[in-house]
Amino acid sequence: MAQPQAKVVETVSSPFISACRKQPVPHTPVWIMRQAGRYLPEYRKVREKVDFVTLTRTPELAAEVTLQPLRRYDFDASIIFSDIMTPLQGMGVELEFKPGPVVEEAIRSLKQVEALRPLVPEQDVPFVMESIRIVRSELPDNVPLIGFAGSPFTLFCYLVAGKPSKEFAEPRSFLHAEPATSALLLDRLADAMIVYLRAQAAAGAQALMLFESWGGLLGPQDYANYAMPPVRRIVEGLAGLDVPLIYFANQGGANLHVISGLDVDVVGLDWRVSIAEARGILGEGKAVQGNLDPALLFAPKDTLYQRINDVLVDAGTVPGHIFNLGHGIWPETPPDAVARLVDYVHERTSRC
Amino acid sequence: MAQPQAKVVETVSSPFISACRKQPVPHTPVWIMRQAGRYLPEYRKVREKVDFVTLTRTPELAAEVTLQPLRRYDFDASIIFSDIMTPLQGMGVELEFKPGPVVEEAIRSLKQVEALRPLVPEQDVPFVMESIRIVRSELPDNVPLIGFAGSPFTLFCYLVAGKPSKEFAEPRSFLHAEPATSALLLDRLADAMIVYLRAQAAAGAQALMLFESWGGLLGPQDYANYAMPPVRRIVEGLAGLDVPLIYFANQGGANLHVISGLDVDVVGLDWRVSIAEARGILGEGKAVQGNLDPALLFAPKDTLYQRINDVLVDAGTVPGHIFNLGHGIWPETPPDAVARLVDYVHERTSRC
Repeated sequence: MAQPQAKVVETVSSPFISACRKQPVPHTPVWIMRQAGRYLPEYRKVREKVDFVTLTRTPELAAEVTLQPLRRYDFDASIIFSDIMTPLQGMGVELEFKPGPVVEEAIRSLKQVEALRPLVPEQDVPFVMESIRIVRSELPDNVPLIGFAGSPFTLFCYLVAGKPSKEFAEPRSFLHAEPATSALLLDRLADAMIVYLRAQAAAGAQALMLFESWGGLLGPQDYANYAMPPVRRIVEGLAGLDVPLIYFANQGGANLHVISGLDVDVVGLDWRVSIAEARGILGEGKAVQGNLDPALLFAPKDTLYQRINDVLVDAGTVPGHIFNLGHGIWPETPPDAVARLVDYVHERTSRC
Repeated sequence: MAQPQAKVVETVSSPFISACRKQPVPHTPVWIMRQAGRYLPEYRKVREKVDFVTLTRTPELAAEVTLQPLRRYDFDASIIFSDIMTPLQGMGVELEFKPGPVVEEAIRSLKQVEALRPLVPEQDVPFVMESIRIVRSELPDNVPLIGFAGSPFTLFCYLVAGKPSKEFAEPRSFLHAEPATSALLLDRLADAMIVYLRAQAAAGAQALMLFESWGGLLGPQDYANYAMPPVRRIVEGLAGLDVPLIYFANQGGANLHVISGLDVDVVGLDWRVSIAEARGILGEGKAVQGNLDPALLFAPKDTLYQRINDVLVDAGTVPGHIFNLGHGIWPETPPDAVARLVDYVHERTSRC
């Protein structure tokens, strides 16, 4: 935010930012969730030398793996390599990655919630902002860098469960058994994510994304009651920032009516949702991002092209579509399939 | 099927069977998925003495735990205690429960698919039918017994992944990488489930249920391409059986349009779906079952009643609603909450 004028000049020329703003684009921009990751041999090579946590906390290495996919593919955006749980460590939560986040002491009491420290990003997680500054210095202007955070309900799931889970029974029952403590924890998380996202933007992130990875565990009523209020708090807390905000509603098909009231620029969709139907529900004010099933990257070339085409047809020609997978790319994915995906989306949608 | 006349007399008097048939009922029938299970101290007591596999393979014990919840609560139906993976052991699949099903050798080749033996239920899994016969001899006529099987795509997920998984990346990529082998495996599984379900009905099961636990991993196009054909094959293979068929479409909200074409009596819904919307999509010919979030059983009494009421209002007054949870009950659930649930549904819907 130090040089707002300079930023505007940069971002206007980017298809990704234009699509976020629902402006016309020369081609449909494309990037993929977890594009810096284990499907790339060069990423695995870095990981042979350092563990995941060290990688997220070493700016030169985090910047390096962020840039790796950009050297291979014509992605229209980059996303900083980090983890949604990283800022929680700055709030005093002890956790390890095995490989999913395991919290030393699951949060189940008011006392534990009150003991959480407010996040001071440049002091608690300075390496994230340093990674962003390095990546920005290396990237061309037309490839914006996305900063991100976990949505409060999703972070709540990990904190209350204490570990990854299929159903997250503990956090879901905790919501109903301890609604006041739950609401306080969700608010504290929202406040932390506000300063965290603002710090990322100040360091140079040109778009921000909130990952609601586990929101799809809630039916519409509880989504409205528990997942939405802290997200609205974040949206309000980011007011005045001149960067687009993307809300990824994983498994959110049942909750799009609820999400439609949210003042974000882009809604990310998983692969089980029709983009056309989603746009109908979300309204004309929002762009959408998604949503090829990551499984399709294992299909023969012709099937892959056909299914990419299906997504593009579903998205239609109204401005405001960013092509992405409907979920993070899987580690076993053949890198060549990603090359085909990116090139095909560009060729098929080129307006030149 | 040995005494069809006797059965008709029995089932006509059952609210559960009437609701499956979309006939008027004296009260909304209620049962809950995994009602025989770890939330009951008497179940845990049995499990202290025998492991899960032994329990499923010992008819007296399987019958005992099937009946346990019926002694505590006024459930309108029982469901035989077993596991969807049990019949696969009869086809030559080596597997263990740790506690989820772990297959000794994941199925990833045509040769492995061809090596699967056709299931001969009374020879391969006689204990299931024996359990059914014991339960039937102990249950009153107005509490029907449900037999069940896993849907082919769901069984396919476990067989190809080899173990439980959050995303089931291997089976989902295998579908696209090896469509012909996938289709053959799905057909073989369908054929096995046809004879398995027929054997359960012949032994006395008065309704049959197919659990599509993992169908929600597929978007509508792949659901139509891969999950539906083997289910249609099963429905056709059960033609002529005078027992209602329930299809539980877990996480199936996005696929209800596809499912609406299926000739089943009842569609089970998870808690993320509006029953009213689902009925609109599924059409008047189908009853529905569901769909309280299992997390609500941890809420204070008044909240629980309010949310049960919400489900009943959502279901409306058109005949053809069976109250259930939207997913299996969690082991940590307080048994008293189940008592409140059952009694409240009966009182609130009583037409006397």
